[in-house]
Amino acid sequence: MSLPYVFINAAMSADGKIASSERRQFRLSGRLDFARVDELRSKSDAIIVGIETVLSDDPSLTVKSSQLREMRQREGIPENPARIVIDSRARTPPDADLFKKGEGERIIITTRRAGKEKLAILKQQAAIIIAGNDRVDLHKALRELKHRGYNTIMVEGGAALNWSLIHDGLVDEIYTFISNQIIGGATSPTLVDGSGYAASDETTRLTLISAESLDSGVLIKWHIAK
Amino acid sequence: MSLPYVFINAAMSADGKIASSERRQFRLSGRLDFARVDELRSKSDAIIVGIETVLSDDPSLTVKSSQLREMRQREGIPENPARIVIDSRARTPPDADLFKKGEGERIIITTRRAGKEKLAILKQQAAIIIAGNDRVDLHKALRELKHRGYNTIMVEGGAALNWSLIHDGLVDEIYTFISNQIIGGATSPTLVDGSGYAASDETTRLTLISAESLDSGVLIKWHIAK
Repeated sequence: MSLPYVFINAAMSADGKIASSERRQFRLSGRLDFARVDELRSKSDAIIVGIETVLSDDPSLTVKSSQLREMRQREGIPENPARIVIDSRARTPPDADLFKKGEGERIIITTRRAGKEKLAILKQQAAIIIAGNDRVDLHKALRELKHRGYNTIMVEGGAALNWSLIHDGLVDEIYTFISNQIIGGATSPTLVDGSGYAASDETTRLTLISAESLDSGVLIKWHIAK
Repeated sequence: MSLPYVFINAAMSADGKIASSERRQFRLSGRLDFARVDELRSKSDAIIVGIETVLSDDPSLTVKSSQLREMRQREGIPENPARIVIDSRARTPPDADLFKKGEGERIIITTRRAGKEKLAILKQQAAIIIAGNDRVDLHKALRELKHRGYNTIMVEGGAALNWSLIHDGLVDEIYTFISNQIIGGATSPTLVDGSGYAASDETTRLTLISAESLDSGVLIKWHIAK
């Protein structure tokens, strides 16, 4: 296999939203889901997010449980999985939380269009991978990550990156925690945004792995045949 | 109780969409879900849809199973539940499928802003209820429906009407069939659109009744405390 195993994990409202129309984050997860996500992180080689998620949420993407971090250390690997940003124009702020918090590698995946000065600054804190001219070539980027030994990759949003990865056929599994809340909003970000499919025979088909109640919501796991 | 029992039933993709960004309908339900929806219809006193759904999908909203229609007849009620359109400006086309197909009552719920000529034409095929000046006053409309003996009301979309009803606190239950498909699209209609909630403490909270696999997807039932 020349591509890593890629799964998307996200919490959404009962109507499919991941934030408010002003991109404000909602607390959608409960205690059990929080622990589940932390464990997924700790078992991954890398976590990928899109630049919009970094700019709007500034997540640290660290493993929160000290037990899980110690378990990783005992295996001789960094406390946190590699944190990777898909960032075609190198807009990741040098003071982003994912640089400031926790040990572990950071990688910026960008394009030839990215400004050299911005890259020079980011290079001090992260490895840089160039993949594509204008938009990040996700297939190429994932091949390169696999080549560097990242076999299991967790995607933590946002909606635009989820669309690109799914549309390009690069995702193996999708885990969605459905919260017991309605957010609404015609322009609120959803689990998968982008341009979307126009016709019924184009949609990406999933295979249900499981659906179970968790906290006050429902955890659904889907598989995608690649 | 001065208000009827109101439930929303809808099929959505795994990412919360109910149609493509061009409002094109997708086949999201399977055979078992289709039968479940038909039975829900046959057990309801009335089915409500918003005018946008009539204009984009032109649904007939009839009970499809002849067995279920006969069962209603044996109970001395029309073959189909009353079909009701929330239509503030009386834009329902006089040749809409819900007028042409099947027996049963039709009701247009509109406002004082609706054109008199349009209403005069619709009056030939439907009862008219005026509720509100500019926008339909949904609370008033539902009170009037309850007064006329409609105790159980099924809402079949779309996204804007779902938002108004949920936001106004008029919904008792929400049933969502989650299809094994990703549709995507930042502007694709979702289960609940409208303006949406801006902050976490404003969201409508649901109580999980059940989550079970059905066809290739998942049926989730939520309750809302009124």
